[in-house]
Amino acid sequence: MKIAVFAGDGIGPEVTREAVRVLEALDLPGLVLFEGDVGGIAYKRHGHPLPAETLEIARSCDAILFGAVGDPDCDNLERHLRPEQAILGLRKELGLFANLRPAKVFAGLEDASALRPEVASKIDLLIVRELNGDVYFGEKGIRILPDGRRQGWDMMSYAEDEVRRIAHVGFRAAMGRGKKLCSVDKANVLETSQVWRDVMIEVAKDYPEVELSHMYVDNAAMQLVRNPGQFDVVVTGNLFGDILSDQASMCVGSIGLLASASLSDGKMGLYEPIHGSAPDIAGKGLANPMATILSAAMLLRHSLGLEAQAARIEAAVAKTLADGIRGGDLGGSHGTAAIGDAVLERL
Amino acid sequence: MKIAVFAGDGIGPEVTREAVRVLEALDLPGLVLFEGDVGGIAYKRHGHPLPAETLEIARSCDAILFGAVGDPDCDNLERHLRPEQAILGLRKELGLFANLRPAKVFAGLEDASALRPEVASKIDLLIVRELNGDVYFGEKGIRILPDGRRQGWDMMSYAEDEVRRIAHVGFRAAMGRGKKLCSVDKANVLETSQVWRDVMIEVAKDYPEVELSHMYVDNAAMQLVRNPGQFDVVVTGNLFGDILSDQASMCVGSIGLLASASLSDGKMGLYEPIHGSAPDIAGKGLANPMATILSAAMLLRHSLGLEAQAARIEAAVAKTLADGIRGGDLGGSHGTAAIGDAVLERL
Ligand SMILES: CC(C)[C@H](C(=O)O)[C@@H](O)C(=O)O
Ligand SMILES: CC(C)[C@H](C(=O)O)[C@@H](O)C(=O)O
Repeated sequence: MKIAVFAGDGIGPEVTREAVRVLEALDLPGLVLFEGDVGGIAYKRHGHPLPAETLEIARSCDAILFGAVGDPDCDNLERHLRPEQAILGLRKELGLFANLRPAKVFAGLEDASALRPEVASKIDLLIVRELNGDVYFGEKGIRILPDGRRQGWDMMSYAEDEVRRIAHVGFRAAMGRGKKLCSVDKANVLETSQVWRDVMIEVAKDYPEVELSHMYVDNAAMQLVRNPGQFDVVVTGNLFGDILSDQASMCVGSIGLLASASLSDGKMGLYEPIHGSAPDIAGKGLANPMATILSAAMLLRHSLGLEAQAARIEAAVAKTLADGIRGGDLGGSHGTAAIGDAVLERL
Repeated sequence: MKIAVFAGDGIGPEVTREAVRVLEALDLPGLVLFEGDVGGIAYKRHGHPLPAETLEIARSCDAILFGAVGDPDCDNLERHLRPEQAILGLRKELGLFANLRPAKVFAGLEDASALRPEVASKIDLLIVRELNGDVYFGEKGIRILPDGRRQGWDMMSYAEDEVRRIAHVGFRAAMGRGKKLCSVDKANVLETSQVWRDVMIEVAKDYPEVELSHMYVDNAAMQLVRNPGQFDVVVTGNLFGDILSDQASMCVGSIGLLASASLSDGKMGLYEPIHGSAPDIAGKGLANPMATILSAAMLLRHSLGLEAQAARIEAAVAKTLADGIRGGDLGGSHGTAAIGDAVLERL
């Protein structure tokens, strides 16, 4: 069992350190960790945000525990050298096409959300975001038009097979939950969405028990505020998923607690907290490592099949929260290492 | 002063009727109203959602009061025949490139929002959305790839002049408000956004008093939930604006109260409530006409220069709300005509 640990930038190293301590405390036989550089730090050390060595490590491992990338120093680099390219590159190179982002209010944290507690407490949804297609990976560029004007352009597209495989992930996830799947698109404007919607309807035939609905993305953004409790599983494309999954996380309120998995067709997956590199608090020992610790739990479950160990970590985190231990993100005063210690004690 | 009244589908005719009553009650010298068919009803009567006659009427008028388009009967028509094409066509044909969507909590309605009252009460923002470009109006289609797969595709783009004119609208709006402009893009992924951002920075030089900031769209969707009070004016492209402006409206809570203006370079503008055609309650006299009445006020202000009359309507609506008169959208029991009557009484 080989795990690549890519801590990255900003608070990435701090929060990853605690997750690694938790993994090591489980004493899993045969577990080996390999470190690699990604993001701004990789650019500074090797001249590229996703160096060949790092990609090599990733390919030789069963799963990746990822911290965060993003470094204000790199904002003016050419696009292909910016830290974000590390995560985009890993998603593409490793075929990590299915991003799972569960959003659920933790017991006792109903007040952490900007939503009214009676609205927030009903949130228990899973966003399934496609990660390998859409306008993210289409051709793009900046050109000078014949009349001399400068134009930026990006091609958006989805082919039926790209939609089909994420549709199956969405339907299977719905089968394991409340059997409701809401597909979000903008089919009243986009042809990309028309193919998306057609394929969703086609795949639905394989899952007669799942109730499929369609929602336009503008309406989905409204409904996630008005009544997020109406959703069970939401499946959507790369761009809309980027926006809606961040919105949904914030509806939960405790963004320092939310984990995510990016899965391939096989066992390989990348696991990361949904918060970013938070350069403003980096290196201060203030970041809440719980989202990364919970990402490690998802890793054990989805890539290594260690359900019991995953549940053990999740229970320890829940207990830590129930005991009133809170990071700064929740208005508490516990630092990164103190929270790591508290989770370890309860493990 | 010629105003085109396009009531459209669903609740469009009901809510527009009340707004027309309010306009007529003002006894404006020389005001003439012209009706035209748009949307599903236009398709049913003339075979097209935006018939040539309607476009003719629009071109001959100073402004358009618009109800709503959208009809489930038309969902399976070819794209160019669907009701939405009426609004997209009017925006493009008339050069209505600047959509202004103010979002502010009305006094006494802090509890209408799903956000906690202390968060919702701070909302006072204006979203400036570009309406003539982006992936909405690029080339698009469905093609069969050489390997036989079906693919939907849409071209996203912005040329510098398209960004420049909406940037000026955003900066001018900020000058008239809190002097803060937040430009929302996805420049870490999209070249379209890179040109967008470059031009925003360039235009900022003309407005040294305005504080310009940039935010990625995923972060903006989070911040609109977490702390919407931080925004003054937000300027963004067509697609992101579609999503964020609906989200912002829902943060305010009272979607039946929110008006919008779509402006051209000249005086011509289209004014519409931001709620849609709401087929479920159409024809029942249940819809709240306040958003359309407030859209008529925006029309008087922006297209006809009748600031005093606009303010008079707005004061009458505010008074109606302060007197406890509420539509079903706010949990009240007043119907469409009763609310129209109440506003007229207070005018
Ligand atoms: C960093 C960025 C490219 C990335 C994305 O847009 O996918 C991030 O926002 C995410 O959601 O993982
Ligand atoms: C009806 C639809 C095409 C339209 C849009 O996406 O612009 C609507 O959502 C809006 O915001 O006015």
